[in-house]
Amino acid sequence: MELKNDLLLRTLQHQPTKRKPVWLMRQAGRILPEYRQIRETVRNFKDMVKNPNIAAEVTLQPVDLLGVDAAIIFSDILVIPEAMGLTYEIAETKGPYFPKPVQTYKDIEILRIAEPEQDLAYVLEAIRIAKKALNHRVPLIGFAGAPWTIFAYMVEGKGSKTFSKAKAMLYQAPQLAHQLLDKITQSTIAYLKAQINAGANVVQIFDSWAGILSPETYQEFSLRYIQKICEAITEAPLIVFAKGAFFARLEMGKLPCACIGLDWTMHPVTSRQLIGENKVLQGNLDPCVLYADFDTIRKHTLQMLKDFGTKHIANLGHGVYPDIEVDKVKCFIDTVKEFET
Amino acid sequence: MELKNDLLLRTLQHQPTKRKPVWLMRQAGRILPEYRQIRETVRNFKDMVKNPNIAAEVTLQPVDLLGVDAAIIFSDILVIPEAMGLTYEIAETKGPYFPKPVQTYKDIEILRIAEPEQDLAYVLEAIRIAKKALNHRVPLIGFAGAPWTIFAYMVEGKGSKTFSKAKAMLYQAPQLAHQLLDKITQSTIAYLKAQINAGANVVQIFDSWAGILSPETYQEFSLRYIQKICEAITEAPLIVFAKGAFFARLEMGKLPCACIGLDWTMHPVTSRQLIGENKVLQGNLDPCVLYADFDTIRKHTLQMLKDFGTKHIANLGHGVYPDIEVDKVKCFIDTVKEFET
Repeated sequence: MELKNDLLLRTLQHQPTKRKPVWLMRQAGRILPEYRQIRETVRNFKDMVKNPNIAAEVTLQPVDLLGVDAAIIFSDILVIPEAMGLTYEIAETKGPYFPKPVQTYKDIEILRIAEPEQDLAYVLEAIRIAKKALNHRVPLIGFAGAPWTIFAYMVEGKGSKTFSKAKAMLYQAPQLAHQLLDKITQSTIAYLKAQINAGANVVQIFDSWAGILSPETYQEFSLRYIQKICEAITEAPLIVFAKGAFFARLEMGKLPCACIGLDWTMHPVTSRQLIGENKVLQGNLDPCVLYADFDTIRKHTLQMLKDFGTKHIANLGHGVYPDIEVDKVKCFIDTVKEFET
Repeated sequence: MELKNDLLLRTLQHQPTKRKPVWLMRQAGRILPEYRQIRETVRNFKDMVKNPNIAAEVTLQPVDLLGVDAAIIFSDILVIPEAMGLTYEIAETKGPYFPKPVQTYKDIEILRIAEPEQDLAYVLEAIRIAKKALNHRVPLIGFAGAPWTIFAYMVEGKGSKTFSKAKAMLYQAPQLAHQLLDKITQSTIAYLKAQINAGANVVQIFDSWAGILSPETYQEFSLRYIQKICEAITEAPLIVFAKGAFFARLEMGKLPCACIGLDWTMHPVTSRQLIGENKVLQGNLDPCVLYADFDTIRKHTLQMLKDFGTKHIANLGHGVYPDIEVDKVKCFIDTVKEFET
């Protein structure tokens, strides 16, 4: 059966649409009172991710409440290390961390390639439930972290401003780093294929920590693994969002994927010149614009829509911040919807 | 009297030199055991900054112990808000914070323009002591935060990954933001002039949080104030280091300053193309390279030296990380010194 709202898929296939599709990174989350209500019934974020019914329910909330043109499955990029054998935990104030970060060859050797139908059954089940509940209204986006970003957390053990331990391994023991990146990449490919098989119409790769690498290091330790994922995923359109990787835009234009996501520091016009005409672009309003009054939000959103021109999926340049008012998010979404291409 | 080692000054004046000058951001700091020894005798970082004898002593340590081609006065960018009337404190684990961040028009109105000879006498005294102790061996660099970066701390109240409160003000109340930025700029100009008057041979502006603004916002709320500072400081060469502001390199090439500092994500060749031939460039080795073995450090440092070509001051692309071994820092410095231009 066909989708009632196929704006996202048509745009990804370079087909004409009446208007641009719009969704927000982190749209299923703390901005919605209905999400916070459910969040209060469980111990932590991880418990929500692990519960397919809850994950599916919050996945649908922004479709019902905000009117976005796509749902994105509620999950976490750190499910992959866990599926490989490296468990993460949630510290009340400091967020996720790995009690035993990867340091040695032996640490890498004991990690397994994830088998999604077994290790990540809870995500696939959430996708199936969400898909059914969506009832063909809008497409469902699956996702995974980029291998470098997953590597950064696995080696550093926790979030960090510099990820200096993870980066140190790239310079100290590049072969070791490649072994781990290779295992993560294999796991990620299997995972994305399983998500598509379970019902995801589109998949996105988040390279959240792309921007802390040098151009050369990024080529060697991130982009080549993203390339492998792009080559392997032929079943659905793929979006690559590499936050801060301004220096790799020329090369990203050559990736075999459908769409490149941009953060708000990358100007749409310059980015189009570097990336070329073959890619759809996604993004990239500064999330902080949504703190402003409605007129200012409309002004900046319209400017962005004009700057991008065609082949554009409207989004923020990063996940929406949790303290943004719902009406401000709606203003952004409605401004996109009223803009005729 | 002339400087015995004038490599930095000659390079900033586009004069030929036998080799490139080298220094490191945060060279006076925790990498040196001699620094940590002094640090243990006081309560916190702020006590060191406020004590002219201690500040001068640690300023000289890297000249004596590492053989760098310049000293940089040991201080903190947050001395400016304090001189304007907004006191900062140091939390044991979390670093500096402002108990009463700036929020309203009234908060801005009560701030004064810093009078350096009075409000920042301790820094100027430290410069005079350091200058005398240096005895014309190498030039002394003074510094200040860029107005946007100082603004970010004053409004946010503390360090942050997103500085969303500070950025929110730019969109919610741009006129208010400009009022505060203007006061900071006036204070900074007076402060840099006083540092030069006290003996600084060169001054550097650190725009540490440049990279979280959009290109348009950066132009309006940061670069125009840096421009004002560049225009006002005619007494000594000025270096502008805007971390993450890759999107403003073309415009930075037009600033009336001597040198642009680059972080490690900005490739030397691309940056030279954007910035043009009129500026000296400073930087930009990835600080994490110094975790590697000596051969790897030499290899990456040599590559950087070649990539920059002429009109280059060798440095890291950010402050040196505190857990880097002293011998690794020396390896970086010595590699630059052995490289003939």
